[in-house]
Amino acid sequence: MSESIKYLLDESRLPRFWYNLCADLPKALPPVLHPGTHQPVGPDDLAPLFPMALIAQEVSTEREIEIPGPVRDVYRQWRPTPLYRARRLEAALQTPARIYYKYEGVSPAGSHKPNTAVAQAFYNKEAGVKKLVTETGAGQWGSSLAFAGALFGLEVQVFMVRVSYDQKPYRRALMETYGARCVASPSTETQSGRAILARNPSHSGSLGIAISEAVEVAAQRDDTKYALGSVLNHVLLHQSVIGQEAIAQLEMAGDYPDVIVGCTGGGSNFAGIVTPFLGAQLRGGRKVRIVAVEPSACPSLTRGRYAYDFGDTAHLTPLTKMHTLGSTFTPPGFHAGGLRYHGMAPLVSHLKALDLIEAVAHPQLAVFDAGVQFARAEGIVPAPEANHAVKGAIDEAIRCREEGVARTILFNLCGHGHFDMQAYIDYFAGKLTDQAYDEKELAMALAGLPAVAEAA
Amino acid sequence: MSESIKYLLDESRLPRFWYNLCADLPKALPPVLHPGTHQPVGPDDLAPLFPMALIAQEVSTEREIEIPGPVRDVYRQWRPTPLYRARRLEAALQTPARIYYKYEGVSPAGSHKPNTAVAQAFYNKEAGVKKLVTETGAGQWGSSLAFAGALFGLEVQVFMVRVSYDQKPYRRALMETYGARCVASPSTETQSGRAILARNPSHSGSLGIAISEAVEVAAQRDDTKYALGSVLNHVLLHQSVIGQEAIAQLEMAGDYPDVIVGCTGGGSNFAGIVTPFLGAQLRGGRKVRIVAVEPSACPSLTRGRYAYDFGDTAHLTPLTKMHTLGSTFTPPGFHAGGLRYHGMAPLVSHLKALDLIEAVAHPQLAVFDAGVQFARAEGIVPAPEANHAVKGAIDEAIRCREEGVARTILFNLCGHGHFDMQAYIDYFAGKLTDQAYDEKELAMALAGLPAVAEAA
Repeated sequence: MSESIKYLLDESRLPRFWYNLCADLPKALPPVLHPGTHQPVGPDDLAPLFPMALIAQEVSTEREIEIPGPVRDVYRQWRPTPLYRARRLEAALQTPARIYYKYEGVSPAGSHKPNTAVAQAFYNKEAGVKKLVTETGAGQWGSSLAFAGALFGLEVQVFMVRVSYDQKPYRRALMETYGARCVASPSTETQSGRAILARNPSHSGSLGIAISEAVEVAAQRDDTKYALGSVLNHVLLHQSVIGQEAIAQLEMAGDYPDVIVGCTGGGSNFAGIVTPFLGAQLRGGRKVRIVAVEPSACPSLTRGRYAYDFGDTAHLTPLTKMHTLGSTFTPPGFHAGGLRYHGMAPLVSHLKALDLIEAVAHPQLAVFDAGVQFARAEGIVPAPEANHAVKGAIDEAIRCREEGVARTILFNLCGHGHFDMQAYIDYFAGKLTDQAYDEKELAMALAGLPAVAEAA
Repeated sequence: MSESIKYLLDESRLPRFWYNLCADLPKALPPVLHPGTHQPVGPDDLAPLFPMALIAQEVSTEREIEIPGPVRDVYRQWRPTPLYRARRLEAALQTPARIYYKYEGVSPAGSHKPNTAVAQAFYNKEAGVKKLVTETGAGQWGSSLAFAGALFGLEVQVFMVRVSYDQKPYRRALMETYGARCVASPSTETQSGRAILARNPSHSGSLGIAISEAVEVAAQRDDTKYALGSVLNHVLLHQSVIGQEAIAQLEMAGDYPDVIVGCTGGGSNFAGIVTPFLGAQLRGGRKVRIVAVEPSACPSLTRGRYAYDFGDTAHLTPLTKMHTLGSTFTPPGFHAGGLRYHGMAPLVSHLKALDLIEAVAHPQLAVFDAGVQFARAEGIVPAPEANHAVKGAIDEAIRCREEGVARTILFNLCGHGHFDMQAYIDYFAGKLTDQAYDEKELAMALAGLPAVAEAA
């Protein structure tokens, strides 16, 4: 039996800086627009929601942004995370490819999300904030912010999409164990929630609605701020520790990726592993193929429009240019709750528009087939979101076998599936289906995109 | 905020040998007896159940037993595991104590159990075995053997105590994801199971019954063997990697424990962290106080009798001298399913009889109070079993505060609680109670102990 190999960096190799791809882009990101005036927003427009340090990071074009000491001290609890060469999976696939995966599931909350949760909690604490409000889908983000809040002594309130709130009581219990308060969304605690419930008292919720509720609560008090787990530049920035470590670990292995695969919901774990490699390429380094894998049932990169849209359903957020299915689009209730978002990070969307990355969509069953094959070969049960990356990597490895080419494949295993076992139960019971979105609803949602006259 | 500190060993420091405390005992272990003849058993008596390599380890008095290369190769996926200095917990407790914990939850199955599951799967595979059969309570052991079976290409069948089978579908799903077959015990697949069901069709099961079923199936075929997750010498031996690593990690920290705390069910995680320190003491090294923490509802070390008894309910196993509540004793259905066993490892029982260790029992609510306090300070949600060790360590730290003494406390955090969140839900809902065992049932079970004339 050829054994899988772990590449572990010494703690002294924990990154000291977050890497900001905006410094190396061939073309700047389109501006974020005020929803009323359609003019570029300034720091003051965002100040009710975020502390100034994070707003500065949101618009920064500095290549390296120093990671504060207290954030690195917390990172050290689980970072640097391991990089594995999946030799048992390679053997099972009979592929000449070398498959590496970066494993972010070793964090206390079980995913990459604490990389930004800890940073956001730190900057909010520094700014005198007492309480953070956020939304969560499957619960990976909510539990990560709950964890970070516990460490920094911040009160945390989480609006959890109702369908997940009901289906995933264990994720909710995890948030409560960390001391956070978890509310099913739509809720009666906000105007946006009450408006939705008035129309449909049994609404199952969506990330867009939960964001509206969290933003509304955060905007009401000076000592309360909002925290977002993906999409925004500063969130993607914090995730860059993943790719930076992976570069150093592949150096240990004497290898470099020909292709990098990541799953995309809001885009943060994908950007985390991808941007340091892409930055190296843009500064004249080796070219890497980059593949974003998304669910067929919520295909923003492959079927969405690249246009200005709202981040939430109640239209409380600024307008950002992104690949979007329309802010009124509600994806079917498939199990990768973290990928059920109508939009895509503006930065990731921009990379797609610049042809720096590819995107592919896969249906749910094929994705779980891949996840179970991975679990049996490598011993780690991935989160449903991460199964998309596994599927993408396995497809690349099979292509290598068919072409007789030994490429190096790197993918991000962004989290474990310990809190998602109901999905596996359904899979084994034959209850999992390839849920399709409603084409008519998509067409309507896209038709409803705001009309924005873009600057040339 | 004073940050918790991680001590991580380089992979080159992964132990090359298992440490066998039997080499350093001041008095040898009492022999294991044949249930029919009451004469010491020989290797042939055990051959239907275990491969010869494991039988040899069971009776070995060699101090060091080499860990086979393929086993070390698998260990490297998660070992050496981290040792943490819990400075955030120390601050929360306002104690002058230095609290360290060894974290075994980083294994793919989430506990210390793979340390022996991988070794057992390896030796069985080497011996040409095709299938392993075992029992499991909460599921930590069953999922660990399922994981190991997947890696070594062995079929795995798990008899899971019915009450856990029904309460913990996610643990069962984990076993199935690894490819194992999981059966609720008592089942109709064995004589022992059918006999129990004939008397009580809705019997909720016990570890003792599940062991009977697994042993019965294993004994029927030459290519099928039995695997036990605790209690036996060779199982405890495999866990010695925990304590060996901890010694090296505390050396890095420039520290040495004054007291070591572990939770005890069958005794394997406890022995794993304790025996290397105890061996050093017995060879003339520094004396360490050692505290075993058990549940008040199943208190084998504090309320059981030190006597010869069966390991299972149907009396298919040999007789071992151990602290036992009687093989017919059924503990109440508290949440730390891994600690619901009527007996205790003969080696741990022997250490107690020799006054080399202390034991203390705690009720369920106090144990969960400690676990939640730990989770909020350190960010890791412990398994209900591990909460017993946390409670023991916190009590020692509070004693340090009261006495104004800065002792060094080491405990084993043997697993995470990701698959036990229902217990936390019940805790927060106020549904958790301090379940007491039935005193009359205990008296009857103890009265029913087999009469064995011990050699002087």
